[in-house]
Amino acid sequence: MQPVDIIRRKRDGQALDAAAIDAFVRGATDASWSDAQLAALLMAVLLRGMTAEETRLLTAAMTHSGTVLRVANPPGPVLDKHSTGGVGDKVSLVLAPVVAACGGCVPMMSGRGLGHTGGTIDKLEAVPGLRTTLAPAEIDRVLRAAGCCIASASGQLAPADGRLYALRDMTATIDSVPLITSSILSKKLAEGLDGLVLDVKTGRGAFMQTEAEARELAEALVDIGRRQGLAVEALLTAMDVPLGRAVGNGLELREAIDVLAGGGPADVRELTTVLAARLLCLGRLAADESGARQLVQRALDSGTALERFRAMIAAQGGDPHVTDDPARLPRAPRVARVVASVDGFVCDIDARAIGGAAVQLGAGRTRQTDDVDPAAGVTLLAQVGDRVTAGEPIAELHGRSEASLQRARDVVAAAFRFARHPPPAAALVRGCITPTSSAS
Amino acid sequence: MQPVDIIRRKRDGQALDAAAIDAFVRGATDASWSDAQLAALLMAVLLRGMTAEETRLLTAAMTHSGTVLRVANPPGPVLDKHSTGGVGDKVSLVLAPVVAACGGCVPMMSGRGLGHTGGTIDKLEAVPGLRTTLAPAEIDRVLRAAGCCIASASGQLAPADGRLYALRDMTATIDSVPLITSSILSKKLAEGLDGLVLDVKTGRGAFMQTEAEARELAEALVDIGRRQGLAVEALLTAMDVPLGRAVGNGLELREAIDVLAGGGPADVRELTTVLAARLLCLGRLAADESGARQLVQRALDSGTALERFRAMIAAQGGDPHVTDDPARLPRAPRVARVVASVDGFVCDIDARAIGGAAVQLGAGRTRQTDDVDPAAGVTLLAQVGDRVTAGEPIAELHGRSEASLQRARDVVAAAFRFARHPPPAAALVRGCITPTSSAS
Repeated sequence: MQPVDIIRRKRDGQALDAAAIDAFVRGATDASWSDAQLAALLMAVLLRGMTAEETRLLTAAMTHSGTVLRVANPPGPVLDKHSTGGVGDKVSLVLAPVVAACGGCVPMMSGRGLGHTGGTIDKLEAVPGLRTTLAPAEIDRVLRAAGCCIASASGQLAPADGRLYALRDMTATIDSVPLITSSILSKKLAEGLDGLVLDVKTGRGAFMQTEAEARELAEALVDIGRRQGLAVEALLTAMDVPLGRAVGNGLELREAIDVLAGGGPADVRELTTVLAARLLCLGRLAADESGARQLVQRALDSGTALERFRAMIAAQGGDPHVTDDPARLPRAPRVARVVASVDGFVCDIDARAIGGAAVQLGAGRTRQTDDVDPAAGVTLLAQVGDRVTAGEPIAELHGRSEASLQRARDVVAAAFRFARHPPPAAALVRGCITPTSSAS
Repeated sequence: MQPVDIIRRKRDGQALDAAAIDAFVRGATDASWSDAQLAALLMAVLLRGMTAEETRLLTAAMTHSGTVLRVANPPGPVLDKHSTGGVGDKVSLVLAPVVAACGGCVPMMSGRGLGHTGGTIDKLEAVPGLRTTLAPAEIDRVLRAAGCCIASASGQLAPADGRLYALRDMTATIDSVPLITSSILSKKLAEGLDGLVLDVKTGRGAFMQTEAEARELAEALVDIGRRQGLAVEALLTAMDVPLGRAVGNGLELREAIDVLAGGGPADVRELTTVLAARLLCLGRLAADESGARQLVQRALDSGTALERFRAMIAAQGGDPHVTDDPARLPRAPRVARVVASVDGFVCDIDARAIGGAAVQLGAGRTRQTDDVDPAAGVTLLAQVGDRVTAGEPIAELHGRSEASLQRARDVVAAAFRFARHPPPAAALVRGCITPTSSAS
């Protein structure tokens, strides 16, 4: 079957069989399909959809478009977490060493940030000297040393996704549940996982802005993961306000270290705990959620998780002393403050606006080829529910130029909302999708 | 607006405005849009459709993507015909000199064949020495000499269509009424026409296989042509059986000369007459259809049309004596015959099968880069309605290799159907779409 025949089938609303989907993924990997043909099929998939079986076949073909990792003699079950991306989300930096400290093996492949959401790799690279581009043998070495590893998604794992994602980004074909599902799962399945927990974010700071969209994606991810033999669950979590106080690469790394040292903001600690606990259950490292939470809390409070993080940094060539001496992290040449305009309670902080301000300060990218400034970003001095008085500092901006600080100051000030009474507490976790619930 | 934003609008079913459509066509012309972006928008247009106003804007933008011809001091109204393509359709070769002989000026830009239908340029190039790649100044010179000219669609006229058509061909985005309409009309409007008649073919040998599809396309062509200020009509004509007896480039050229000399098959003469008559009315060279038919018949029977054809061939560098001495045309080294299997009346000849057999013999292309053999093809010795006896020759095959003749012989034999009684006469013209009828 020629590419044009496969495109025509999907265009006409028919399901593609395994041979057609394999041909498409091979065409994306070995360049035997032109960009135009790949893009036409991507648009047809977006508009015509895919059945669960087609999505499974696409995920499997993309997983096997390159190397599939097999960790040599893993010390425990091979586990990972994926987040659909949010503002201030540094959970991966904490969760990987926590799960390692609890007996799991975490070969985490992460990406860089684009737009208002950050990327774990950019955050970790704020550590002086640390490398994230690791060959499979190096990943094995880091895992032996620390039990966890955070590396850049390499061209060797699921290479079809690299070409397809770049095309989707320029052709308005990102927002398709089958395409998002296969993109996320193929990269994770190529890590050779036993268990995966997915953090599907919903809200104005998230990719999926409504809870219905987020739930649809979460159900697809869990369903397809299960069909591919993975122990998998998804949590729907709120992303309306930034997670924690720090937004920006080095600032978030520092906050992650605070959490690993038993402190840090309550929301970051809680989200890490619930996600890590689900993962420990999936990996059978804990009998139930309550036991799993105790394991996580002990790893955080006893310093064993921080010890894993330090070992991982050292094994990846970074300066492990940043965990004890945050002054070794890059610092922005200029810091400015934003103050409260009125007396009252902080009742809302727009995550998307804060993410945008961080990008303006240099912490993020507007194009894939941009560099990021590891020192830039925003620190929230007040979180939702805090009482403030007019003139009191509510945020700190870290940047290089007076002009970017001035622009960001206006954006950050406008992102805060105040009220006379404290707002009702909002649940961080909005739902949990398990293979049983999604099969119903 | 970035390409991705324009693609997203169409993907989401919204109409594109003039600025968006101009950006798309400019992107196709100056390569500022990638192939992937063009293909994604083409697929979105195919699946989401376009309003009449969007199609008009697209047609206008494509028309002005390159040079628009202005014939210098035309001897009469500037007229042309377009056919959606059929098997054995050599009407353009006859109609251009007929209309010139009746006082029109015909700067006909034609294409090459692909698949089972032939192309006028391939047919005309069977004349030794004749050139079809002509600069605008040469087209003017040929028009002054002959009143008509048949040239290859050049990269200077509607260049956006060249790139878009090549992409549509490989991405299953040919079959879209707005895209077909803008492709056909932009090239014709770039000829600077006063009047255009469209031959929209329907049936198994045509691009539009059902009459409903053909009517939808014809109505769109007439509606958009009218909105662009063109005097335009469309005829729906049958393409179930080959037109005339000759299928193949040199064979069809020879049959066209027969018709220009006042002879030839009745169906070719009739279709040419009705299309040319409509065109003479559109160009106000005749007061009504009956007067126009008389003008056409006189041009054919008196030899004035053949004289124009001879002058055109000479002006385009070809050997004008082919019109008197068909032996000067290329001849195939091998000829084979197909005989009737039973006694009876020929009740059907599958045009698509005959077109396919001609391609197998070398008369057509399966890919755009293939060469064609000017001598190859099929001559039907029996047409629908003819009485034959078993063993009597019904077709002649012209080719280069015994193997291709053998394959074609089976296909041609299977394309014939016989019956005990003569079939009822089928109308060649199935309908006429005028601006008034299409606006209703």
